[in-house]
Amino acid sequence: MGRRDGGADEKGEPGTVVTPSAEFPPLDEQELGALRRIGEQWRAAGPSRPSGDLPIDPTLRRHPGEPAPGRFGRLAPIAMFQVGEPGELVATEPANVPGTRLGRELGRLRRALFGPPLRSTAVLYERMRKLVALPVLSSDLLSSVAYGPEAMLAVLVLAGSGALGLSLPLAAVLAVLMVAVGLSYRQTVVAYPHGAGSYVVATDNLGARPGLAAAAGLMVDYVLTVAVSVAAGVHAVTSAMPRLAEFAVPLGVLTIAVLLAGNLRGVRAAGNLFVWPTYAFVFALLAVLVVGYARAGARDFAPVAPPPVPVVEGVGLLLVLRAFASGAVSMTGIEAVSNAVPAFRPPEWRNARTTLGWMVGMLVLLFVGLTVLIHLNGLVPTPEATLLSQLARATFPAGPWYGIVQATTALILLLAANTAFAGFPRLLFFMARAGHAPRRFLHMGDRLAFSDGLVALALAAGVVFVAFRGYTESLIPLYAVGVFLAFTLSQAGMVVHWHRRRGRGWRRRAVVNAVGGTLSGLVLVTAAFSKFTEGAWVVVLAVPLLVLLSLAIHRHYRMLNRSLALHPSPDGPGPATAPAPLPGAAEPGAPGEAQELPQQVRHLVVVPVARLNRAALRALAYAVSLGQPTLAVHIAPEDPEADRFREQWRAWGDHVRLETIVSPYRAVIGPLAHYLEALHTTRPEVLLTVVVPEVVVRSRWHRPLHSRTEQRLRRALRPLPGVVVTNLPVHLDH
Amino acid sequence: MGRRDGGADEKGEPGTVVTPSAEFPPLDEQELGALRRIGEQWRAAGPSRPSGDLPIDPTLRRHPGEPAPGRFGRLAPIAMFQVGEPGELVATEPANVPGTRLGRELGRLRRALFGPPLRSTAVLYERMRKLVALPVLSSDLLSSVAYGPEAMLAVLVLAGSGALGLSLPLAAVLAVLMVAVGLSYRQTVVAYPHGAGSYVVATDNLGARPGLAAAAGLMVDYVLTVAVSVAAGVHAVTSAMPRLAEFAVPLGVLTIAVLLAGNLRGVRAAGNLFVWPTYAFVFALLAVLVVGYARAGARDFAPVAPPPVPVVEGVGLLLVLRAFASGAVSMTGIEAVSNAVPAFRPPEWRNARTTLGWMVGMLVLLFVGLTVLIHLNGLVPTPEATLLSQLARATFPAGPWYGIVQATTALILLLAANTAFAGFPRLLFFMARAGHAPRRFLHMGDRLAFSDGLVALALAAGVVFVAFRGYTESLIPLYAVGVFLAFTLSQAGMVVHWHRRRGRGWRRRAVVNAVGGTLSGLVLVTAAFSKFTEGAWVVVLAVPLLVLLSLAIHRHYRMLNRSLALHPSPDGPGPATAPAPLPGAAEPGAPGEAQELPQQVRHLVVVPVARLNRAALRALAYAVSLGQPTLAVHIAPEDPEADRFREQWRAWGDHVRLETIVSPYRAVIGPLAHYLEALHTTRPEVLLTVVVPEVVVRSRWHRPLHSRTEQRLRRALRPLPGVVVTNLPVHLDH
Repeated sequence: MGRRDGGADEKGEPGTVVTPSAEFPPLDEQELGALRRIGEQWRAAGPSRPSGDLPIDPTLRRHPGEPAPGRFGRLAPIAMFQVGEPGELVATEPANVPGTRLGRELGRLRRALFGPPLRSTAVLYERMRKLVALPVLSSDLLSSVAYGPEAMLAVLVLAGSGALGLSLPLAAVLAVLMVAVGLSYRQTVVAYPHGAGSYVVATDNLGARPGLAAAAGLMVDYVLTVAVSVAAGVHAVTSAMPRLAEFAVPLGVLTIAVLLAGNLRGVRAAGNLFVWPTYAFVFALLAVLVVGYARAGARDFAPVAPPPVPVVEGVGLLLVLRAFASGAVSMTGIEAVSNAVPAFRPPEWRNARTTLGWMVGMLVLLFVGLTVLIHLNGLVPTPEATLLSQLARATFPAGPWYGIVQATTALILLLAANTAFAGFPRLLFFMARAGHAPRRFLHMGDRLAFSDGLVALALAAGVVFVAFRGYTESLIPLYAVGVFLAFTLSQAGMVVHWHRRRGRGWRRRAVVNAVGGTLSGLVLVTAAFSKFTEGAWVVVLAVPLLVLLSLAIHRHYRMLNRSLALHPSPDGPGPATAPAPLPGAAEPGAPGEAQELPQQVRHLVVVPVARLNRAALRALAYAVSLGQPTLAVHIAPEDPEADRFREQWRAWGDHVRLETIVSPYRAVIGPLAHYLEALHTTRPEVLLTVVVPEVVVRSRWHRPLHSRTEQRLRRALRPLPGVVVTNLPVHLDH
Repeated sequence: MGRRDGGADEKGEPGTVVTPSAEFPPLDEQELGALRRIGEQWRAAGPSRPSGDLPIDPTLRRHPGEPAPGRFGRLAPIAMFQVGEPGELVATEPANVPGTRLGRELGRLRRALFGPPLRSTAVLYERMRKLVALPVLSSDLLSSVAYGPEAMLAVLVLAGSGALGLSLPLAAVLAVLMVAVGLSYRQTVVAYPHGAGSYVVATDNLGARPGLAAAAGLMVDYVLTVAVSVAAGVHAVTSAMPRLAEFAVPLGVLTIAVLLAGNLRGVRAAGNLFVWPTYAFVFALLAVLVVGYARAGARDFAPVAPPPVPVVEGVGLLLVLRAFASGAVSMTGIEAVSNAVPAFRPPEWRNARTTLGWMVGMLVLLFVGLTVLIHLNGLVPTPEATLLSQLARATFPAGPWYGIVQATTALILLLAANTAFAGFPRLLFFMARAGHAPRRFLHMGDRLAFSDGLVALALAAGVVFVAFRGYTESLIPLYAVGVFLAFTLSQAGMVVHWHRRRGRGWRRRAVVNAVGGTLSGLVLVTAAFSKFTEGAWVVVLAVPLLVLLSLAIHRHYRMLNRSLALHPSPDGPGPATAPAPLPGAAEPGAPGEAQELPQQVRHLVVVPVARLNRAALRALAYAVSLGQPTLAVHIAPEDPEADRFREQWRAWGDHVRLETIVSPYRAVIGPLAHYLEALHTTRPEVLLTVVVPEVVVRSRWHRPLHSRTEQRLRRALRPLPGVVVTNLPVHLDH
């Protein structure tokens, strides 16, 4: 696959641009050619379209008088459509209202919750200034300092308070890692000026499977971003208000639900919403640092001795590695800029690179600054209050400052969770466009949001959150693996990228990415191994399973596309120089479904008749009026009943050939399905159309009073090739 | 309604005979006349049935070579049908096998559990000798002495052990009641020699509502027979084996499940199975009586003083009435003979009457004998062991006799529950035939059993059993009300019956029934009032609700039948002397569904096309091949997509008129449904046929990968009048 450096690559896929038309990909040249040849074969059958022969004007213009309102609402259905270009109507908003009363009520509720539907043309491609982009894109990254240092210290404290000092060298190593990965991503921004996340970079350079592995890692990452951020946010709140601690799980679930609702609503002008909490958080933390270091300076930076803590395990390599991997989760969200390059003002790549630089700088500053300050204050992780809360309390023992720190922390964590709600559905959209995820994720809901992806994320995050009882510490081991898998694959992809392109200075660039990738890979391996039993096994298991699932989905869609691909009918009366079937185009599979030209279709209409009543006679009239050969079938439970029915048939006049089938075991569906199959086996080239009248009851309370034979019949006939089922609704009087 | 004294009444309903053809009632004379006139209107349109024009021989005779096996099994589908009379095929057993693998597996499991299907001709009309009929019909009645005396004493003991002596006068009154009701039913047997339960007698003589009230009472009675008998049977077992006491509820549920399975299997030759446990139970109880009285005689019939019991309430009228009503449940099952008169050998009514006499005699003997003996032995009801168990233990302190009494008691209670499984579905069948219950209860399953009725009974009984934790005492208050409601209405019906007929000695007969009915009515009122708060309110509430439900069902079916009734088309080109529409025949309700003659139907075929692929082109080919005016519709999410699609359409050759609808809110189903409604509104007399291709995926795992638009579309279009939906299956290659 080539590099996607245009607005659309050679396959017509518009890069990272999201459009509502993605559900309807255009035909490629080969398919268009096949379509033209099929059209010629149709033409050979003579004029299939006598002009002006439609009994109703499809443009809805010639209607007599004022139309009556339809049963779907007060508006007449005709008024729901405006005439656009010739042959085109535009549906107005009321045309989306469902037909059933329940559906309308639900629609009204939906509208109240999520707002009125938005037009496709309302898709915004906002461009961001750097000062806006920084808070928008960095909330995920910067918010992780709220739980990263704590996660690291929570591991170290297992070896007693003496081991807490190890946090300083670990923070230094992590700072190096942050800078390395940051430099790596700076290069990605330049190389993919139209934006590319780990999935795209890995797919492009390493192939489909590594790409899917990166995607799986990212999916896990997004789910855990929501779970961890919400857990940490709730913890920030309960640290300040301990009485809420017992409601932590419902509070978190409620938060996820609110985030889902907000995103289903499709938050407009999200940028402005993001600006101030992020800056407020950064300034609050900077205040903590300044005041904290000032106080520490007052006592000559002598560290306060931490309270003694029971030793659970000795200081070993494994413990240090686990602490390191836990601290590394502070880097989640660093890839946000590379996804969003096109959202910057031009020159996009330069602005994006600058923003990334600021972000990483700020991250290193906050992370290292907080870790050292925590050490100086001799703070120890406790389940009651977060370290940040303890630190803020120690720094600002009185006044509103403590509350401000906690509030901005909770807020930025909420925003971080929200970024996952932006990223996850986009990732699924790109995967679905490549056929690696269910197609439903291509569909934009009526608020222009990818509703299915949002719901999937909220469900997954909710399940994870509840399963781990909203306890941040237990979620961290799962988190690191997914994040660093995506980092590693993305950087490895960049190395291959530079190697392939061999532009100016490619070696240097490759080395930068190789260093970033290697370090990420080391963290990945560290996290996967050292935390395997603590929960990382879930992710280690989930990623390959997700990859296998994606591959299976892809296989199914490829088979589907091949089956549905256009190819001229082989035995059709095509032009003299009928082209050979296209290579790769599959032959129609099921016998009896080869009729692809009108002139090839031979009909037999079959009408199952249980009783001679108005519904049955309407079905017979419909069948006969089609002008095709017609056969009526009656299934009788006993011989005498069959005789009686034939007598009635003769009384009617025997207008249609009748075949009665005695079913001595009283089953109806089975014998009828087998009889149709037998007819089909006799002459597979004849298409059977089964006309089934269906009594439509208005109230669902009345449904159990009807046998619903037509639905069971339809289900039984569905696997049969060459059997078409026509449902003739019969509406009851009242 | 007249009396049903023939094999079938004037409506062709075959009395109490149950046939598989009941689902297909024949047309009456009026309907046949309408059918003939409609046939003439069809003929007026010209020959609608050119001879020999079917492309496939419907008798399946002309098939080339040996047919290949179908996908439904190893047998070729053609071989599944045998040619019967001309125009008739007979399905063999394999023709019932479902088409899906899951269905086949379920079918195999079903067959293993319930046996192979039975032919309709296997319905047996066995005739019973009196010595066989006695145990078969009396198990329900006689088994009630296992809990009747206990239920009575359990109420009396609330007033302390001194009140237990009241059981003797109460037993005497109950014996009188038993004889009176027995004499009443003797007369029913004679008056309805073809068998008639309370529902039929009450409906015939008192009208539909009292009949339904009797039916509701009987339904409650059947459900409680199962629940009470199983509860008492389990109690008999746990009395002998106290360690099983904690498993009483699961044991009972298991018993109900086994009963259900046995009845779904359709127990053949049930008579012989019933003979020996009933006789064994009677003989075991007679042995208890003989030995017990011999011992009592040895001490000059001096009653043993019962142990002191705490007094919960004083002896009052209410207490006595409650005890009386509880003891009266011993009479449940007395009506069995009157239902089953035709099952006796001729002269049926005389044999039935004799059997009834024996049964009542035996009941009085056992009930009074046991009550007196319990009194003489000074036994008191305890939760641990039944009174019968205590009595048997006191009578046979050693040896196997105690075990035999308990085993036969449990067994006869099981048989009593089983009789409800015979009666309940039959009752629902008769109700369904009269349109008072869902039609599904007319259907005989493949084992010739009314499967739906059996399942309904087992579910209801299981729910009641579990809700009352299998505790017999709590169920008794509910029981009495239902039973005596049916008794009362049946006897009242008989009084009206005699009064209407005024045959020889009608006054005497009416008096006998009036006495029986009055006594039953007194018990009914007693039970309903004295036990209202103890649970009788459930039944007092349930009966009218069931009656209302039945009436609502009847109303719906009447509306349905009127809507579907045959009547010649008013504007059809009928014969010159076109008859006026039949009185009572409703006009066709929905506009656009008035086309009932082939010559009236005007077509427009609409094909929704999302993408131009093989599925869409097949749908278009199918539509065009029907030779009717055709319109294609495309729903586009954006204007550019609409333009692109029209371009492709032109590349194909524009063979079908295309209308694109831009749906700016990206919904598909809503705008399409409204557009079709708009077309329909423009010209309601044109029938719209919507051809929808449906991709059929073989594995259910693949279904979430497809949008299933066709199903949502079908659901949205169902309420629209005049819109026919045709499903064109497209099977994938593998």
